[in-house]
Amino acid sequence: MVESLASGGFSPGKIIATTRNLTGAQKLQELAQKYANVHIVTLDAVNQESIEKCAEEVGQLVKEEGLNCLINNAGIKVVADFHSVTAEKMMESFHTNAVAPLMITKAFLPLLKRAASRGASRTMGIQRAAVINISSLLGSVELNWGESSNNFKWYPYRTSKSALNMVSRCMALDLEPDGILCMMIHPGWVRTDMGGSEAPLSPEESIASVLTVIGGLTEKDHGSFLDFTGEQLPW
Amino acid sequence: MVESLASGGFSPGKIIATTRNLTGAQKLQELAQKYANVHIVTLDAVNQESIEKCAEEVGQLVKEEGLNCLINNAGIKVVADFHSVTAEKMMESFHTNAVAPLMITKAFLPLLKRAASRGASRTMGIQRAAVINISSLLGSVELNWGESSNNFKWYPYRTSKSALNMVSRCMALDLEPDGILCMMIHPGWVRTDMGGSEAPLSPEESIASVLTVIGGLTEKDHGSFLDFTGEQLPW
Repeated sequence: MVESLASGGFSPGKIIATTRNLTGAQKLQELAQKYANVHIVTLDAVNQESIEKCAEEVGQLVKEEGLNCLINNAGIKVVADFHSVTAEKMMESFHTNAVAPLMITKAFLPLLKRAASRGASRTMGIQRAAVINISSLLGSVELNWGESSNNFKWYPYRTSKSALNMVSRCMALDLEPDGILCMMIHPGWVRTDMGGSEAPLSPEESIASVLTVIGGLTEKDHGSFLDFTGEQLPW
Repeated sequence: MVESLASGGFSPGKIIATTRNLTGAQKLQELAQKYANVHIVTLDAVNQESIEKCAEEVGQLVKEEGLNCLINNAGIKVVADFHSVTAEKMMESFHTNAVAPLMITKAFLPLLKRAASRGASRTMGIQRAAVINISSLLGSVELNWGESSNNFKWYPYRTSKSALNMVSRCMALDLEPDGILCMMIHPGWVRTDMGGSEAPLSPEESIASVLTVIGGLTEKDHGSFLDFTGEQLPW
């Protein structure tokens, strides 16, 4: 995503990528060396101290312009069926996938507000300020039924993503008065470390689609749950 | 609920109530003394050891008949808005309201299966075996929008209940092959310690309605989210 944004025809003024482990993020380091608008900041999404430190560092980078778009993308795939699931697996997945986006958005609120108030004449969208939560089709309670659900009996993952949908919806209501758009998007099933090799979408295909959807968001998408083609998904 | 069941015209053979603290459950103790079919077992819903011990004790009570109906009713109301919410409050609420019903259902599965296989000639319902999760209208992501949401900016509670809906839906899929019905019900806004004094429903009204709905559940209600009048709620 960082590479797409940095190399694209319309590259944002500043792209700030986060990573838990700076020295392990070889590819990000290369991008930061190649593109002057790419910055890297350390963030451990389940550590409150780290979240606050990250928000402070990002604040120093964006200065009075604030932050136009926060993408909560960190997630873990904790897979366990009815028999193997434990309370610990449920809690771990919930913390990273649902609670972290909330705590991160809270910490970045002043920066998002700054961007939103500078763009007060603009309509809602990433031109002003937006929070994008990367959710999943597997977080849809309605779609978790019938034949198609059989291959994905992932209690911790599914539950954390439907919890994230509620968190996002709550935040959408609270961010609206400040003109900050908030929505959730399903990036598709992608051939990443998480998605595995059988996934139908390449990372490039997914990212191109997701960035197109994000770029075109308007007020009507506030509080919505869309897939990577921009189609609305059921809760 | 225990009193309603015990004093009703059609009282179940055995009613097993659980409580965290036996000595504090004065009213339950009185009911157990008054009605021979009321039993009390200790259960701390967020303690795995306690869950397993409880399932063992219930197993000794129900013997070869198994358990026809498990009502996951324990819940906490952790209230916090966007500014006051913390990761700890989110985790605490999630553990009790969403994870505990899952871990309890897992522990009681052998007893539910026993009842379901004895009633194999019957249709799905509490005559055979059922898991009822007490959810909430506030767990509906769809309904969390517009004016009506303004009075209930309860991040931990709402999120835990929508998580419970996903947990219930996952369980419904996994319990179906054994003929065990699983659904979630919103008991209404009730004048209890949790609901407060302005709530429109008395506990008696809510319980009468909820028990009527539970008593009439059939295959078509499997995996559904109903309110206390039997109306379907959106996810």
